Amino acid sequence: MGDVAARLAEIVGDKNLLIGDAISEDYAHDEALSTTPQKPAYVAKPASTEEVAELLKAASEYGVPVTARGSGSGLSGAARPQADGLLLSFERMNAVLEVDADNHVAVVQPGVTLAELDAKTAEAGLSYTVYPGELSASVGGNVGTNAGGMRAVKYGVTRNNVLGLQAVLPTGEIIRTGGKTSKISTGYDLTQLIIGSEGTLALATEVIVKLHPRLTHGATVLAPFGDLDQVMAAVPKIISSGLAPHILEYIDNMTMAAIVYNEKLELGVPEEIRNTCQAYLVVALENREEARLHEDIETVGELLSELGAVDVYILEGGSARKLIEAREKAFWTAKAVGADDVIDVVVPRAAMPQFLTKARELAMAAGGGALGCGHAGDGNVHLGIFCKDPETRKKLLTDIFAYGMELGGAISGEHGLGRTKAGYFSDLEDPAKIELMRRIKQSFDPAGILNPGVLFSEGKA
Amino acid sequence: MGDVAARLAEIVGDKNLLIGDAISEDYAHDEALSTTPQKPAYVAKPASTEEVAELLKAASEYGVPVTARGSGSGLSGAARPQADGLLLSFERMNAVLEVDADNHVAVVQPGVTLAELDAKTAEAGLSYTVYPGELSASVGGNVGTNAGGMRAVKYGVTRNNVLGLQAVLPTGEIIRTGGKTSKISTGYDLTQLIIGSEGTLALATEVIVKLHPRLTHGATVLAPFGDLDQVMAAVPKIISSGLAPHILEYIDNMTMAAIVYNEKLELGVPEEIRNTCQAYLVVALENREEARLHEDIETVGELLSELGAVDVYILEGGSARKLIEAREKAFWTAKAVGADDVIDVVVPRAAMPQFLTKARELAMAAGGGALGCGHAGDGNVHLGIFCKDPETRKKLLTDIFAYGMELGGAISGEHGLGRTKAGYFSDLEDPAKIELMRRIKQSFDPAGILNPGVLFSEGKA
Repeated sequence: MGDVAARLAEIVGDKNLLIGDAISEDYAHDEALSTTPQKPAYVAKPASTEEVAELLKAASEYGVPVTARGSGSGLSGAARPQADGLLLSFERMNAVLEVDADNHVAVVQPGVTLAELDAKTAEAGLSYTVYPGELSASVGGNVGTNAGGMRAVKYGVTRNNVLGLQAVLPTGEIIRTGGKTSKISTGYDLTQLIIGSEGTLALATEVIVKLHPRLTHGATVLAPFGDLDQVMAAVPKIISSGLAPHILEYIDNMTMAAIVYNEKLELGVPEEIRNTCQAYLVVALENREEARLHEDIETVGELLSELGAVDVYILEGGSARKLIEAREKAFWTAKAVGADDVIDVVVPRAAMPQFLTKARELAMAAGGGALGCGHAGDGNVHLGIFCKDPETRKKLLTDIFAYGMELGGAISGEHGLGRTKAGYFSDLEDPAKIELMRRIKQSFDPAGILNPGVLFSEGKA
Repeated sequence: MGDVAARLAEIVGDKNLLIGDAISEDYAHDEALSTTPQKPAYVAKPASTEEVAELLKAASEYGVPVTARGSGSGLSGAARPQADGLLLSFERMNAVLEVDADNHVAVVQPGVTLAELDAKTAEAGLSYTVYPGELSASVGGNVGTNAGGMRAVKYGVTRNNVLGLQAVLPTGEIIRTGGKTSKISTGYDLTQLIIGSEGTLALATEVIVKLHPRLTHGATVLAPFGDLDQVMAAVPKIISSGLAPHILEYIDNMTMAAIVYNEKLELGVPEEIRNTCQAYLVVALENREEARLHEDIETVGELLSELGAVDVYILEGGSARKLIEAREKAFWTAKAVGADDVIDVVVPRAAMPQFLTKARELAMAAGGGALGCGHAGDGNVHLGIFCKDPETRKKLLTDIFAYGMELGGAISGEHGLGRTKAGYFSDLEDPAKIELMRRIKQSFDPAGILNPGVLFSEGKA
């Protein structure tokens, strides 16, 4: 162990290697509600791609498991290290290397936060459009989980907005994939394979992201509905309208009550409507021209009324921003009101009413509850699960995931499997696919040093 | 050999297995200009996923190499079979299984042509937005090469528009990847890995494609420029405008002359302008509202004038359609005027002027020529290469590809490597990446039966 520490310290320098008590509690977990914190044996903070490569070579040689960490804001435990492992923190590799306005791309190091990237791209009138809700999240972490967020309904998720990577293979080779171009048909798409692999295949050390023109005019409509089915039926109609909202969210009435209370929001919805409506739809539009935005917002309002909204509230700048920010904090709200887990099943969007009805029935039958909100345009349902007993909860989640898959969906739309969902994946996924994924893992990481226990449940399948 | 034929005939039925003289010349090639046609030993036409699985199991057992074929319209030889091989033609698996308007997806068999899919989706007011220019192309073939086309500048390429697959592994297992949903973070993205793998990893037997609302109002602007550099400098400005053209193409003056002559086009450009301009930009816009379209077309026209266009022609319905169709036939035009090869290097779009200048210099120095047009918004340069001597041409292409890669680009933006570019890929690509891709190939296809000689050059790297 002393040998390993000495070797790692040689690579990153003494003050960038932490061992024993120098490792703070923060490094023992991410934000997943259902993992047990675990301090690693070593925390290394490399400053360059070359140092990352040397660290991985050393880890391979000594058989030390390696977990990568960005900001630690993940929700499924993919950044929770192993007791005998090395936590490789990208906190020092946090530079925006380039904002290239002609090619509409930025090149960043993985430790850059979304807030920093947003500030830099704003200067060029551009925007990186992946907003998973947590602006302290790192781009590298977003690549790991294929993060999504509210604007995915218009702009897609991380994999639709990352054009290329520099990455280090667990065997120490440094490769470049993709480039500053939106199309390449030249061999297998390694960029897409590494995105969403949760630190199990390779570690990204540079990320080329796509930028969009920053549209300056935006407005938000809030529409309460008497009935959740009506909300869901409205979604495909809004998409078909061609109005291209960049946010299309539903929030159930309990969740809305909790976020209004927690964030002290004043949305102008009268109490009798709040008491009778079952769910809300939030629709936000943006445009490069103010006049068109106003026209389109009127059109959306009329459409929502036709589709059964009890009323339609056009939110002005400040309250619109607060509502979106409050929605982004829905995870923290769920945590504050005592949720035992949060899940983000994705189903075909037309199947959302069925899925939600069944998930709630299952939760009630288990003596618990399931409340939430979600990316309605994407069929991505975020539920806080209230069910104290671990065994009952495991059975409940298994049933909910199985039903989502039966509807043609998947366990996670954007949080990833991490440690918390890996067991369900092993139990529910087609064994032929898991075997294929294990062989792919093997082709990158023959020694199995990258994030064991994540994505693939240990000792299963 | 008799044994193999008998087994294959048992699977697909006698009349759906061709051997010997029953195999027509058509099956010996695709549309690549530089491959030698080669008839396969067997052509099988399965009718179902199960038959495809049985064929692959039989091929594995007998060690028969398998090449998949859609419509045979590929440009790099990926559908050219082996002499001792099985050509698996998807011509009978050509149904649109479902157009699902609520989820904005269609589910199709791989043999469906883009023309058929377009007709079916039009009935629902929807559109599959990948238009690689050849409407007789099959969706399965598009998945194989990750086909692009003119509308990619707005809608992306095949990989951005395919949400899921049913696929058969070379070992015979049938898997489903992705689904009717635009985001999934649940294990490695096998959909994206199979797309663009040119029939070397698995064969898609069902494809879930994303549909968009069909916008009915469209208009096209043609702008001649004195100077190619001006054309290229205009491109990022048009993208930054936020006008979101769905077509943004450049056509050099020689290529324009050839397509105008071949297609008997009358575009209204006076002779003195035609004689002095070096290149044209074609910009097409679409909108759900006619008034906005007219406003935006005016704006584009003004912008193009500011950016140095000699004049601006707004093309009406018929002539706009003819110009786009003629541009789509640029490959046939290049072939008609005697091009010895066609290439489609992709570079960061700001690097297009440098790339084009150098490619022409290299071609001239080799005693040949390089003419073309391209997807300017994507940095995807289509060049007809005129250079008769095979050895000189090989050296020329190597130099052109190497320069494209030096600029941060890749050998192919949408045609794929196939057989014709596999050798260049072996010679020019990072060996660590090729080795990794070979290991991935091995993880899917341990016996190596799927399309040997395609993507990986045989006996190299």
